[in-house]
Amino acid sequence: MDRHASPAALRAAMRSGAFTDNTSGFAPGHVQCNLVILPDAFAGDFLRFCQANPKPCPLLAISPSPGDPTLPALGDIDVRNDLPRYRVFEDGEVTTEALSIADRWQSDFVAFALGCSFSFEEALLADGLEVRNVSLDCNVPMYRTNIPCAPAGPFRGEMVVSMRPFRAADAIRAIQVCTRFPAVHGAPVHLGDPALIGIDNLDAPDYGDPVPVAADELPVFWACGVTPQIALAHARPPVAITHSPGCMLVTDLNNSRLAVL
Amino acid sequence: MDRHASPAALRAAMRSGAFTDNTSGFAPGHVQCNLVILPDAFAGDFLRFCQANPKPCPLLAISPSPGDPTLPALGDIDVRNDLPRYRVFEDGEVTTEALSIADRWQSDFVAFALGCSFSFEEALLADGLEVRNVSLDCNVPMYRTNIPCAPAGPFRGEMVVSMRPFRAADAIRAIQVCTRFPAVHGAPVHLGDPALIGIDNLDAPDYGDPVPVAADELPVFWACGVTPQIALAHARPPVAITHSPGCMLVTDLNNSRLAVL
Repeated sequence: MDRHASPAALRAAMRSGAFTDNTSGFAPGHVQCNLVILPDAFAGDFLRFCQANPKPCPLLAISPSPGDPTLPALGDIDVRNDLPRYRVFEDGEVTTEALSIADRWQSDFVAFALGCSFSFEEALLADGLEVRNVSLDCNVPMYRTNIPCAPAGPFRGEMVVSMRPFRAADAIRAIQVCTRFPAVHGAPVHLGDPALIGIDNLDAPDYGDPVPVAADELPVFWACGVTPQIALAHARPPVAITHSPGCMLVTDLNNSRLAVL
Repeated sequence: MDRHASPAALRAAMRSGAFTDNTSGFAPGHVQCNLVILPDAFAGDFLRFCQANPKPCPLLAISPSPGDPTLPALGDIDVRNDLPRYRVFEDGEVTTEALSIADRWQSDFVAFALGCSFSFEEALLADGLEVRNVSLDCNVPMYRTNIPCAPAGPFRGEMVVSMRPFRAADAIRAIQVCTRFPAVHGAPVHLGDPALIGIDNLDAPDYGDPVPVAADELPVFWACGVTPQIALAHARPPVAITHSPGCMLVTDLNNSRLAVL
């Protein structure tokens, strides 16, 4: 698949089952999203969870009504087939991966599209900064922290963060660049000593791949879209569906439109 | 003297010799400036030095013409008498302190008013952040670094920085707040390991007073208005005049007017 194909062409290929891969680097310039689908009985509390925790859960769009699989604010989208790959959760645990969820769709499902780090990584790269996981062509390292999220109903848990190392002057610039993009995790939440947020060993991420941090670099930590999966594990809804890691919802929105300035 | 007196009333008291003190905390909300006065033969190179090094030398105003002691952009100001206290340099070295420079004024003098950290400290405090040197009622610690300034004619030298400690989340917020104020040193230039910018010992500042840095805090470093004095020492003009440390030019400008956003 051509990386520069339009978002609509990419989604058509996903819908037909021709594209089932990681979406990193595809449709550059366009917003990609984390997806969370829940029964309507859990949707109100999850919406409050997102509102109370905007850095890990920046909500970009929500289903027009329960059972409606479209997200018109983000493009001509059917969330049942327009992602490459899904994860199905039962009682808060992953039980299945699937290429389509059409056969599992329920009339009470509500879909949430949340901002994703791909957008701010693109802004960092466009600014001339090196993003280590991009340079190394690996997944970003992610860690569970001791930073509590604000609870909402059954949704609670600690924040998950992603880490990218920078020299101090570049870390300051990265903070400035990401401050313009609150809808895709915004400014970092921590930098420097990982132990201060409950991370024991940078070389052993809880998700993704480790990356080297040079002696003259600081680890810089951003709130991460994996956080909702921790909240799902606490809330234990009978069924929930998310994108599969790295296999995101590709939208028609331009990344630059998310800049607040 | 009433700390809340107007800038014009404060300058009148300085002009009459009734106020000869540090201006920190006076006329809150108003911009205070570093002052550098040079013979016109050096003014062009110093102007280029400021343009090339805007973080340590953010130029807010310059004399309308050589020999003119006013700075109409900043208020009804006569730079010969309207500061509490001056330093006179000969061949780049401090030789005298003076309460007025009326008797030393030359027809070829050009005055430069540069932004000062008081403005961004006020913005940090207004945001609810603790500024250690303000809490401790002492001078901010300042350090010579190994960060070279861009040279211009005879003006050159390393950047001087001021340091304020913050926990990481507050350091990130401080970067955001100060980014709005490029005319008063703007965002920090470094944070974390002092050795990376040539500072051996935080407890032994080159200027000002040491402040404690807690185990869970990062030292955060801003470009400092003392930098021009290093450049003066290199350029060795036959005569130059600056404000005395902490005894600044109080202007009519509102700090909030310097915010770029």
